[in-house]
Formats: sequence, structure tokens, C-alpha cells
Amino acid sequence: MTRKHVVIIGGGFGGLTVARSLRHADVTLIDRTNHHVFQPLLYQVATAALSPGDIAWPLRTLFRSQRNVRIIKDDVVSIDRAARMVSLRNSLPIAFDVLIAAPGSRHAYFGHDKWESAAPGLKTMTDAVQLREKMLLAFEDAERRRTSTGVPTQLTFVIVGGGPTGVELAGALVELGRKAMGPDFPHLCLDDLSVILVEAGPRLLPAFDAELSAKAVAALTRMGVMIKLRSPVSDVHVDGVRVGQEWIPSTNVIWAAGNRASPLLNTLSTPQDSFGRIKVRQDLTIPDDRWIFVIGDAAHCVGRDEKPLPGVAPVAMQQGRYVANLIDRDVAPDKRPLFVYADRGMLATIGRAQAVAQFGSIHTSGLFAWLLWCVVHIFFLIGFRNRFRVMSEWVWYYLTFKPGARLIFERPAAAQNIPSTDHARE
Amino acid sequence: MTRKHVVIIGGGFGGLTVARSLRHADVTLIDRTNHHVFQPLLYQVATAALSPGDIAWPLRTLFRSQRNVRIIKDDVVSIDRAARMVSLRNSLPIAFDVLIAAPGSRHAYFGHDKWESAAPGLKTMTDAVQLREKMLLAFEDAERRRTSTGVPTQLTFVIVGGGPTGVELAGALVELGRKAMGPDFPHLCLDDLSVILVEAGPRLLPAFDAELSAKAVAALTRMGVMIKLRSPVSDVHVDGVRVGQEWIPSTNVIWAAGNRASPLLNTLSTPQDSFGRIKVRQDLTIPDDRWIFVIGDAAHCVGRDEKPLPGVAPVAMQQGRYVANLIDRDVAPDKRPLFVYADRGMLATIGRAQAVAQFGSIHTSGLFAWLLWCVVHIFFLIGFRNRFRVMSEWVWYYLTFKPGARLIFERPAAAQNIPSTDHARE
Repeated sequence: MTRKHVVIIGGGFGGLTVARSLRHADVTLIDRTNHHVFQPLLYQVATAALSPGDIAWPLRTLFRSQRNVRIIKDDVVSIDRAARMVSLRNSLPIAFDVLIAAPGSRHAYFGHDKWESAAPGLKTMTDAVQLREKMLLAFEDAERRRTSTGVPTQLTFVIVGGGPTGVELAGALVELGRKAMGPDFPHLCLDDLSVILVEAGPRLLPAFDAELSAKAVAALTRMGVMIKLRSPVSDVHVDGVRVGQEWIPSTNVIWAAGNRASPLLNTLSTPQDSFGRIKVRQDLTIPDDRWIFVIGDAAHCVGRDEKPLPGVAPVAMQQGRYVANLIDRDVAPDKRPLFVYADRGMLATIGRAQAVAQFGSIHTSGLFAWLLWCVVHIFFLIGFRNRFRVMSEWVWYYLTFKPGARLIFERPAAAQNIPSTDHARE
Repeated sequence: MTRKHVVIIGGGFGGLTVARSLRHADVTLIDRTNHHVFQPLLYQVATAALSPGDIAWPLRTLFRSQRNVRIIKDDVVSIDRAARMVSLRNSLPIAFDVLIAAPGSRHAYFGHDKWESAAPGLKTMTDAVQLREKMLLAFEDAERRRTSTGVPTQLTFVIVGGGPTGVELAGALVELGRKAMGPDFPHLCLDDLSVILVEAGPRLLPAFDAELSAKAVAALTRMGVMIKLRSPVSDVHVDGVRVGQEWIPSTNVIWAAGNRASPLLNTLSTPQDSFGRIKVRQDLTIPDDRWIFVIGDAAHCVGRDEKPLPGVAPVAMQQGRYVANLIDRDVAPDKRPLFVYADRGMLATIGRAQAVAQFGSIHTSGLFAWLLWCVVHIFFLIGFRNRFRVMSEWVWYYLTFKPGARLIFERPAAAQNIPSTDHARE
């Protein structure tokens, strides 16, 4: 058995798991950033409850002691199946024996790409930091306008999409706004803030049981979130969003409504679904190449119920372990077991001491589900140090309501446009 | 005694101290950012040893319980002494009874402003984050070129200026490069890295005793820093720097050589020194207005030895307390005591377990000075939580050499220019 050269595209949950699991191959892991992000907590960075460094780790540090893994920070431009090479933006092409494509997805706007600038989404650390800055600046602007003109300012946040990300963002935003930000902005009245969660379908958290969806609606409503169901967004502008026939004025629209797999996958020239995902076989390979795998939310992988598996971390990690095992043991294509996803359940947090959980037929909500959510998320954080850090951040945050992550960085571009702004020492 | 409206420009050490000390006045604190930065540790953010949130605090959080202080995040454009108003970029002008101008300074290029883009300085959190990113990307690029082409890559960092900032940066950089980054970049040889510290004058740390300057040179040389004294920089380009007659190729030049007070001070129309600092009287007021104060490194304030006081945090903080006392007690101009700076000594850190300290006639260096430096800096960090955090960060960093702050954020502008870069999940 010869030692294979395995190229992995993407350092998310799927790619990272493959690279960590492979012991008998030379691995090249390519990512356009230098870090892995714990995506399930990204909304906490966006709402200034955690700092970026709390939920991201340099890939080089993660693989420091694994000498068979080489890291390349670069963009993969295309995949050449015939030549068995990937082309990179800034380096020479790299040949592979085995390829694992785990490039992930971006938020999608159902064909309205121009909505993105007015309604940014939340997929990467850069998204989260920009969202945080936009949100904090909105509070600063409202306070400044209020003190400057005396006129009350309505501060409206609209979140589009009632899945877990939308629900988590809505809960975190209203908590931050109502409890933590309030005392800091003495001229803003709490009634000036409204958080509106908009969902096209008939209920929140459609992947969960209907009873838990109803609990989520009840909990968010108690917290002060306004929920609009059966309300498809028909237009987004810089100053507001059209929901059904209603126009909601808001300069703070956040998009959590749709995903589209990376366009890199188009260069594989193999069938894709309507979200751009590659339709993989039951061993996660593409139809006519048994050594090119696609995993994570870039893959359209059919589960036992004939529906595609959801784009969540446990799916990507189980796929990663499955693929690494095939490669390490050099399992011939005709001897491979089928990939089967072991569904361990679903969790979504709503706010402080509020979550919903569904494990097979066991459904739970409220404080117990939230404690479960905390345990699971801390358990899966990679590395003791960050577990400890995030835990202490959370404890501190929940005790004091003083987020330690509320820095607005100046934008260098803007700073250059304003010649005389360097008067305030920072 | 009527209640005065005090306007403070700048939330650095000086402005912050005034605002925290004033109890019997209505205070408006204006800063162009939303946070106070503990500047003495900025170089640790720039060298990825600490995260931004570890050394910066939102001003609103700091003043949450002090209800006489109002925060405005805005740029002051000019000061109108006759009308007793300050003009802001985004809000209506604000009238004052008493003004404290503490706008700080920026790095200066001795009239060569075009050097700035090639040789950035380190004054603000944005500077630090950009420097960190540039430095980390330089390592990534060198590694990528090495693995892609096989040709060894010389990685040269040039630091211009042998004051405390230059010395601290040089020490931290060589430590990060030689000890922490080495294992992460297996294709970079340690000899590929050189850190060059360039100083125009005859010795490092000119404010310290000559004996301590020599100790700093010896310690830095042992660590692997190349030091060039009596070496004025005559030109800076994007691909290198001319030092005397020598051309040093480097795409990583850092400027730590000169300061210039904020140009806002020009609108005061009162005598300034060659660094743009306002020449203040012995009560820190400007010559013809006894209720306009200038403090911090925006002030040219003469000490007992007839030399201007240095632009360091202790001077700004003592000035802040002095001014707040005059205002709170409404001391008439002719009854004011002179401001006298109580020099408690100077400290500069060189590297792990290496520092120099000078307290009057007591000079010390090495581990003891470094422990002193740690104690002083932790003691002055505002707020228990950050003290604890930074301490645990340091302990962790020094034990493991694994900086937890090595994230490269994508630049949004660059990301927009590259349409197909969203293939790697972050």
C-alpha cells in the first residue's frame, strides 16, 4: 500500500476532521483563511458576546504536532479531474491522489445578489466582525442623533430567516439591546429598539418538531422579538425591506435565509442540486471518480429518509471520519460500507437560559435544553484553553451583562478619506 | 459655584483620567473610537501575543455607573475659542465652559508622509491589527513561496526607531518568529528570519541611562536582533529602506521613530512647538484662556529640568488628575498651584524575562526588571477582569508559545475584488 497524497479543500468541520483523522497519508490542507472557526458560535461574535479569538484557532497551531499535514493559505481556483490537480490563486498547482472537497457554502439571496450589501449574512469571521461593527455603530448613531437633535430614533433590526441562525441572532440581539446596551446609551429608550424576525414559511425552526417551534415563538415573543411568519421578503434596500405587502424601514437587515454551495464545485463538472451541492454516492464520492470526495454542506448526501442531510457540523464531522477511514485503510471502491449519518439530535439556543432540543422522540425546552446546549458546545470546542476561556466569558457575561467584545475598529478606507481625524487618541 | 459643562477631547490616558476624576461637573467625553486602549501593550497585539479585547474597553462600559459623563463617538473637526464651541463631523456643535484637549499624537515621518504606506506605525488598535495581519501574511507568503518554488525566502523585518516601542517590537517579533512561528511553518528555516532595529542616534532607549541602553543592546543581540545605531533612514519604499548608504530590502518596515501632535490643535491658534504640541502654562492652560487645558502628549509642558515632559501614560494621568482637581474645586486662575510631574521611573521590556528599569538612581535589568514591568502593567490595567485575562494569556503564552491571537481577517475590499474566493469554509 503506497502512501497517498491527500488534498483537502477547506478547513471547516469536515476538512478539519479528515485532516486530524488521517495518519497514513501525506495531507495538504488548503484554506483561504489561516484559521478554523467554530461556526455554531459565530452569532455570539456578531452580537459582541464573544471575541473572535475565543472561537477560532490558527490551523497551523492545530496541526503543529501532526507532521503529515501541510497547511496552505490560498484560494483554490479550480479542480482539474483529468490531470488530478487543483489550481491555486497564488501558488503553483498541486497534484493529488485523493481529493476531499469541503469548501462549504455562502449565504444566498435567491437570485437577488444585490441584496447582499444591504442585508449581510453570517458565515465567516469577517462577516461576524462586520456585523458586530455595523450593529454597534447603529447604537452609537442613534444615541448621537438623539442627543444632537432631541428627536427619538427608532432602531429596528430585521432578521430574515427563521432557522437556528435567525432564531439565535434574534434572541442574542434583543438581549444585548434591551439589557446590556440600554444602560450604556442613556438617551436611548428601550422602546426605541425593535427586533423583527421574518420567516417565509409557516413556522420557526422548521427542522424541529412543531411543538418546539411553538415554544421558540413563545420564548422569543416574551423576550420582545416581533415574529412574522408566512412573510416572504420580496425586496431589500439600504433603508428597508419589503415583507409581503409591508415595507419595514430599517438600515439593519441581517440575512439568515439561504445557502448556496461554493462555486468552486462547478469546476468538478458533475451533477449538482439546486443549491449548487454535488450529488454524491453513498461513499461520498462523485459519480465517476472513486477518489474524489465531497463532504459537509457542499455535498448533497441522501439520508435514510431520502432527504438530503442538513448542513450542520455533526454531519460534516461524521463524513470526515468516514472518509479518513476509507483512505487510511485504502478500502477499494467495491468494498466500501455506505456512509450512514448517526443523528444525535438537534439543539437551538434562543437566549439566556432558553433553548430547544430534540433527540429522536425526546423533546425538551427551557433551562434544561439550554444547559445541554452549553455542555455540548463547550465539549465540542477544540482545545482546553478555549473551552475554559469561553466558559469564563459566558459566566462573566451572564453575571454582569458587560460584553467584553464591543470594540469598533475604524475602517482604514474611511480613515484615509478623512484627513483630519487623527485628533482623538485611542 | 455653578455646575460647569466640561468637554474632553480624546479618551486616552489623559482624557479618561479627567473624566473619571470629575465629580462636580457635567462631562462630555468625545472620542472617534468607542474604546480606550491601554497603549503600552499595543505592541503585544501587533505581535499576536494578546487579542484586541484584552487591552481595550468600551468607553460606555467604563462610564456606565458615572452618570455625569456623556460619551460621544465622533470626530472633533475644530475648536472655536471665541464661541466656546467644538465642531463635530457628524453631530451639532457642542458648547463648553471648560475644555480639555487630549487628542494625542500620531506617528510622524519627518515630512515624508508618503513613507507611511510602506512603513506603518503603531498608535491605535487599527494600526496594531493591521500590523499583525501584515506580519502573519508575510510568514504565510514566505512559507507558500518556499513550498511552491523550493527557493529559500529571506524574511526581513525592519523596525525604525530605538525608543521603547521599537525595542519592545523588535524583541517581541524575534521571539514570535524564532520560537513560536518556527514550528508552525516547517518549510521556513529560522535563519531565513532577520529582525533589524535601526536608530538614528548613538544609542537605544535614549531616555534611559547609558548603562541600561547598553544592556538593552546586549539582550536584543543575544536574542538575534541586528541593531544599527547612528543609522538615519533616508528613504522608504514598498520593497525596502535606505539606511545611511545601505539599502535593506524588506517589505515589512515598521515605523516607531517620531510623533506629531494632532492637527486639531492648530485650530486653537496658540503657540506650538516643532512637534505640533501646544505650549501650555504651568497650570496646563493655553496662554490666553485659563479654562482651556491641553494635556497628554498633545501638550508641550516643561518639567523641572526645563525639558518638555515625555509623552507617556503617567504624565497624562497625573495631568488629568491635576486638571480635574482644579475644575472640581473651581480654583481661580490666580490661585492655582503649578503642575509638577512626580517621576516614578521608567520601564521598557525587551522580551521574555528581559526588561530595563530606572527609578531615580536605581537602575536594574533582566528578570527582576521584567517582573516589575509585569506587575506595573497588570496593576494599571483597568478592571479586574482584564487583569485576570491578560495575566492568564501571558502565563499561557509563555508556557506554550502558542499565541491565541493569530487570526488573519480577510480584507473585505480584497474579498470583493475576487469573485470566486468563497470556496473555503471558514
